[in-house]
Amino acid sequence: MAIKVHGNPRSPAVQRVFLCLAEKDLEYEFVYVDLATKQQKEEPFIAINPFGQVPAFEDGDLKLFESRAITKYIANAYADKGTPLLVQDPMKMAMIEVWLEVEAQRFDAAGKTLSFEICIKPIKGLTTDEALVDQLIAQLATVLDVYEKRLAQSKYLAGDKFSLADMNHVPIINNMMKTKVRALFEQRPHVWAWCADILGRPAWQKVLAGLNF
Amino acid sequence: MAIKVHGNPRSPAVQRVFLCLAEKDLEYEFVYVDLATKQQKEEPFIAINPFGQVPAFEDGDLKLFESRAITKYIANAYADKGTPLLVQDPMKMAMIEVWLEVEAQRFDAAGKTLSFEICIKPIKGLTTDEALVDQLIAQLATVLDVYEKRLAQSKYLAGDKFSLADMNHVPIINNMMKTKVRALFEQRPHVWAWCADILGRPAWQKVLAGLNF
Repeated sequence: MAIKVHGNPRSPAVQRVFLCLAEKDLEYEFVYVDLATKQQKEEPFIAINPFGQVPAFEDGDLKLFESRAITKYIANAYADKGTPLLVQDPMKMAMIEVWLEVEAQRFDAAGKTLSFEICIKPIKGLTTDEALVDQLIAQLATVLDVYEKRLAQSKYLAGDKFSLADMNHVPIINNMMKTKVRALFEQRPHVWAWCADILGRPAWQKVLAGLNF
Repeated sequence: MAIKVHGNPRSPAVQRVFLCLAEKDLEYEFVYVDLATKQQKEEPFIAINPFGQVPAFEDGDLKLFESRAITKYIANAYADKGTPLLVQDPMKMAMIEVWLEVEAQRFDAAGKTLSFEICIKPIKGLTTDEALVDQLIAQLATVLDVYEKRLAQSKYLAGDKFSLADMNHVPIINNMMKTKVRALFEQRPHVWAWCADILGRPAWQKVLAGLNF
């Protein structure tokens, strides 16, 4: 099997890669990385990702890290398989790139830390920083206000078709659905319809069914 | 003239777009946005960037925001003009995408705020948060340790050729050169040689000569 994903299934970044592979209907080998013993900070993992964070990815001789670079590669290299996630036209692709950046720079800036504070810390027996959570909820609300206006104009972030820009949001939003942050999404009708759409996709349901941690 | 850049020349994100246009030898119109009067938070600017931050960009009917999405668009749409910044091969492009993500997620996480604290705050008469600066310097040092190993293996981040991944670093590194953070780069010989190379490029020298603020 040519494709390998190294990581921990609890990580939203690893789930993002699983989801992309599911949308593309690609088979892969999963290599478990034990974060409790910090395997991600040691060889052989850091030979692929020198920053020591999951996921790492292999496709034959190609070795990649950074979940968004990995999903971009999968979407490009397997453009003709499964769900189309990118487009060739430079102008349409530019809109996908804008919303890929918005996810990575603005949504994730609040979402990743919220997910860690509310979803991961309790599992690890750590104390959630409630003041930080309140600050991040306010930050995420301003981001979602922009999403609400955008999604009133087009069904998906980059236009009328589901794209990698929508897809990259799914694992963090899925984590938020089990927490008080869910209300931020519910209060915004276009955002809420979009969440239902992207979380309900068969590829994500397949990923969820396979998660085991 | 089809291309317009809306922004303030002091912003590293705006300078990133100027640089990309210079590498591609493209003409453009610059539309000054007065940050002091918060023009970026009002119409007509927020019609292009609903997040209210510079830069915004137009190419004919196409309207974009997020500096990295803009430079990606320019590099794609004008692939045959000026300096090649991306490649067609999915495997080689994947390495560029990895290091584009590293810049955006890891380098910039420390670099942007350092630039603001050390370079922008004194201009605005604000007090630099020295404790935060020390914390960000430590964070940037660990990122540059990885860069040092990488640049010992290849002349540029994504391989033997200059790419958009290197280019996107230039404005923040340029700001750092005038501050105590310069030492972090000087102490790492491969990083230092890379800095001299990318800051010395004619396109950046042309941008610097044209900056007026």
